[in-house]
Amino acid sequence: MTVHQAEEHVLGLDIGGTKLAAGVVSSTGRVLSYDRTPSMIEQGPDATIERLFRLAEGALRQAGSDITAVGIGCGGPLDVERGIVLSPPGMRDWSGIAIAERARERFGVPAHLDNDGTAGAFGEYLFGPWQPARSLAYLTIGTGIGGGLVLDGRPYRGSTGNGVEFGHLVVDWQGRVCNCGQRGCAEAYVSGTSIAARAREALAGGRESVLRRGSVTAADVAVAARQGDPLATELWEESMRILGRLVAQVINAVEPELVVLGGGVTREGQMLIDPVRRYGLGGVMSPSSVRTQVHLAALGDQVGVQGAAAITFDPMRSASTPGRS
Amino acid sequence: MTVHQAEEHVLGLDIGGTKLAAGVVSSTGRVLSYDRTPSMIEQGPDATIERLFRLAEGALRQAGSDITAVGIGCGGPLDVERGIVLSPPGMRDWSGIAIAERARERFGVPAHLDNDGTAGAFGEYLFGPWQPARSLAYLTIGTGIGGGLVLDGRPYRGSTGNGVEFGHLVVDWQGRVCNCGQRGCAEAYVSGTSIAARAREALAGGRESVLRRGSVTAADVAVAARQGDPLATELWEESMRILGRLVAQVINAVEPELVVLGGGVTREGQMLIDPVRRYGLGGVMSPSSVRTQVHLAALGDQVGVQGAAAITFDPMRSASTPGRS
Repeated sequence: MTVHQAEEHVLGLDIGGTKLAAGVVSSTGRVLSYDRTPSMIEQGPDATIERLFRLAEGALRQAGSDITAVGIGCGGPLDVERGIVLSPPGMRDWSGIAIAERARERFGVPAHLDNDGTAGAFGEYLFGPWQPARSLAYLTIGTGIGGGLVLDGRPYRGSTGNGVEFGHLVVDWQGRVCNCGQRGCAEAYVSGTSIAARAREALAGGRESVLRRGSVTAADVAVAARQGDPLATELWEESMRILGRLVAQVINAVEPELVVLGGGVTREGQMLIDPVRRYGLGGVMSPSSVRTQVHLAALGDQVGVQGAAAITFDPMRSASTPGRS
Repeated sequence: MTVHQAEEHVLGLDIGGTKLAAGVVSSTGRVLSYDRTPSMIEQGPDATIERLFRLAEGALRQAGSDITAVGIGCGGPLDVERGIVLSPPGMRDWSGIAIAERARERFGVPAHLDNDGTAGAFGEYLFGPWQPARSLAYLTIGTGIGGGLVLDGRPYRGSTGNGVEFGHLVVDWQGRVCNCGQRGCAEAYVSGTSIAARAREALAGGRESVLRRGSVTAADVAVAARQGDPLATELWEESMRILGRLVAQVINAVEPELVVLGGGVTREGQMLIDPVRRYGLGGVMSPSSVRTQVHLAALGDQVGVQGAAAITFDPMRSASTPGRS
């Protein structure tokens, strides 16, 4: 063990479908070191985990400080209590991988695994400007739509640690097919991937637009909408209405004090948050519609690592059964 | 105060849009006395509350025992902390009615107000056969669709006490207009009222059926579906698919250990629970799909009074800020 430090440092590891990231983070959320690399998940868990751990060792050297814990964020489903990855979509070889145990062995400190949405939510709660709020729902709108929930100052995960899948709240129960196998989840409409897919479908259907078929992204749709392109404007507007309704559903269901929106698609800033607030808060009943706040996330592109670090600072972590907060 | 009793007794009051109910309930959930009367909400709050209190006095005389508290269940929005009815849909004169204070004055014991969905959920949790489960979501499918949530053995209400509006989770965001003013909420499709309305619309559209236009109810649809009537079968089947998806949404969002379904429409028993389980659990990801239980409610037609009584037995009630569990 190290000499006691006024500011504790931990290692945060983020396992995503497109990138791996590692960094040393302080108990105030300061990132002392950070590095990332493409996931190349197709190499299988052993090779991928080895690359992640080497990335982490580089981050540790760069920070030059001892760590007291490792936090790992990963897409679900997970066995949070035992630190085991079950089989996240797109990571099928990862079934039963005891990632927390491997990290504990490698780095010699306690290691905790959590859903990346939960990690992001708790990172926003601990390190963002939101307290004295004690409850917060987090939506991350990127490749997919992730969710996380903090209730009474603690991560809420559901009874098996796999709840808070806000991306699978419904938009149209007979609508677009989602990655989860069901129809009409919000993720099938307003993830970055789905906004781009809807644009490509409209172009394939013969709609005129400055958007170019084949390479279009959600960011391209936003740019074209800013320029007044009718198709892009229509798609963006509909996406914001749907996102607003998703926020309304989260408020109707769990009524947190605030809803925080992060992820790549929220880089559009006011162009996203203004309509989402308008449609979202307009879709819930009083008094929630007046009292609930909706904000863009405070943490930036390193949220994956900051969130993974945050979960190690949950004071009740060892004092309660994981999965029941 | 009364002599200490081994079994505590409380008064439960249920204020609904169609009926008022009152009863004395023991701390084990036993109903010692019970009475009900039509609400006649149109008489305004003062007259309605006076009739409710007289009904309660009759129930107290009948039970012949002293009470230690009054619990009141009512539709939201409410100020749970201060015991004030805000303005529930269909009860517009009731804005700012300090019902808990009035009950305290009338009956001389502490009085608590809670959302009727929350009360039903906590009644099921305390008096049903569900423990050792510590979390439970409750859906009541009747005139509307109400919801309640118990997390870690306590009622969860959201930050202002007005969350857990599961009936306003979405089925089709551009679909049927709901009582809440939004489009496509589950309540607009599969409340008893909405199932009946959809049947009437199909009949008005010229569909052949044994159902008779004008007087059709959700129970009539169930009866006709049992008899093999094609329209009724189609309507019931679609309703069960939607209810299943609603259950899936509740599990995806908060992942309780079990989901309990009550309310008038659930009197159809196996004809409801079997398809709802099949479609509901089929619509959530593993491991929630395997571990979450879906059951018909254990409490019967007196759940309103039992639930209202239950909230007085929340052990943390006075030890924490209402609205944050």
